[in-house]
Amino acid sequence: MSDAIRLFGLGLGPGNPDLMTVRARGILERADRLAHFCKKGRRGNARTIADAVLGADPAREIAMVYPVTTEIPADHPDYAAALNPFYEDCAARLLAEAEAGRIVAVLCEGDPFFYGSFMHLWRRLRDRVAIEVVPAVTGMSGAWTRADAPITWGDDVLTVLPATLPGNDLARRLAATDAAVIMKLGRHLPKVRAALGEAGLLERAIYVERATMAGERVVPLSDLPEDEDAPYFSMIIVPGSGRRV
Amino acid sequence: MSDAIRLFGLGLGPGNPDLMTVRARGILERADRLAHFCKKGRRGNARTIADAVLGADPAREIAMVYPVTTEIPADHPDYAAALNPFYEDCAARLLAEAEAGRIVAVLCEGDPFFYGSFMHLWRRLRDRVAIEVVPAVTGMSGAWTRADAPITWGDDVLTVLPATLPGNDLARRLAATDAAVIMKLGRHLPKVRAALGEAGLLERAIYVERATMAGERVVPLSDLPEDEDAPYFSMIIVPGSGRRV
Ligand SMILES: C[S@@+](CC[C@H](N)C(=O)[O-])C[C@H]1O[C@@H](n2cnc3c(N)ncnc32)[C@H](O)[C@@H]1O
Ligand SMILES: C[S@@+](CC[C@H](N)C(=O)[O-])C[C@H]1O[C@@H](n2cnc3c(N)ncnc32)[C@H](O)[C@@H]1O
Repeated sequence: MSDAIRLFGLGLGPGNPDLMTVRARGILERADRLAHFCKKGRRGNARTIADAVLGADPAREIAMVYPVTTEIPADHPDYAAALNPFYEDCAARLLAEAEAGRIVAVLCEGDPFFYGSFMHLWRRLRDRVAIEVVPAVTGMSGAWTRADAPITWGDDVLTVLPATLPGNDLARRLAATDAAVIMKLGRHLPKVRAALGEAGLLERAIYVERATMAGERVVPLSDLPEDEDAPYFSMIIVPGSGRRV
Repeated sequence: MSDAIRLFGLGLGPGNPDLMTVRARGILERADRLAHFCKKGRRGNARTIADAVLGADPAREIAMVYPVTTEIPADHPDYAAALNPFYEDCAARLLAEAEAGRIVAVLCEGDPFFYGSFMHLWRRLRDRVAIEVVPAVTGMSGAWTRADAPITWGDDVLTVLPATLPGNDLARRLAATDAAVIMKLGRHLPKVRAALGEAGLLERAIYVERATMAGERVVPLSDLPEDEDAPYFSMIIVPGSGRRV
């Protein structure tokens, strides 16, 4: 972990500030610039995780505001058309900061290399500047810990599924695994619920919202009202039931 | 996170002491007893991770020495017969310490609830004493970070596989996933290599040994000599190639 590094992909963990790594805390304190993704008019999720540690210091902050406010499905061509120039812009901005000698940290929820937006900056900048990625506790580790549910035992297979997949694909993969984590729920919750039902896993599924954060909620999925929407920080876990000794 | 808690499942992360969480560091410093699993005549892996932080203090240490020295396959009845009384003993010992008013931390590699031995103590003690599990950076997060390989993009599905599974099962599951992590390699490496070959993934597989620790090694699997054995701290990752924006 060289000191010459000027750009950090800084994993902040699942939410509770005590669950940041010692390394992440140190970089958070000494970085000259703290960059984070956010939606227009809202604070970024990763930035909020850092609140407990950071005082107000507007000169250090770089908000990277997503250009799409209403949701375009990620597989639609307009999505890439809108996001590509945005990521290019962000990358150029961070590169300029780093080249001016500043230490720039991009704040990430959970682990940066696990479904992280930071990866889109990383692939644009990796050949142009030295980058250190700081791994972190994932949201799913936070979720199974707070659900008091060890996720994998013995030879259990774990499958991590984005809720954005088609329902039949979800059902098929759920039926074939020992343990599962379903991320990015949002408006996909009804489809996910149906897929879990098809796979015979409804009774084993646990819904976890805002794991380790204020407003945390852990309930058996079967107790969650069917008409409820899932917020951004939510996932479903299906703990494995492998070999107990 | 109540202060009345006397038993901790303390995740220490992938190896580098700076990758412990702030919470884990604090508990490591103030616990009265530090328990860890180990093989006869050897230091425990989790205990070794804590070396950088802990001074020598034999009065604090509780070594839980596995009774099986030569390896019994985990699916053999002798395995459970040997390990069940061992875990019962360990659980009783830790419970006695906690009931005597001491704060006991069980040191765990990576995250305690992800294929962790601590889970066998947890299920024996959870109804008898208040337990806090401290989640941690997993070995796999350490591995994909050090391999400079984001593991999942967009809608990628991640499958985590224990190398102990039968070869045809491994091959089938590898062929059906976007990204994979294969843990617990050891003597199973030749079988895993064959399964990756069958699934057409040999060229994408990265072998990572001792991620984030001294003696770390990251090589494309195809560059690893075929006659080499894999040590305990090793895994193979197959990064996903999902949607780039
Ligand atoms: C774009 S992914 C980023 C994942 C992150 N890099 C990680 O390591 O957890 C965002 C998804 O992570 C999940 N997530 C992350 N943190 C969470 C938390 N504390 N509680 C519940 N879900 C969380 C949610 O499913 C959310 O939709
Ligand atoms: C019994 S499992 C425990 C996993 C741990 N609880 C975690 O969260 O990573 C042990 C396996 O984890 C993997 N592992 C853990 N830490 C590692 C590291 N730093 N480098 C490589 N492999 C690691 C190896 O595959 C090893 O056989």
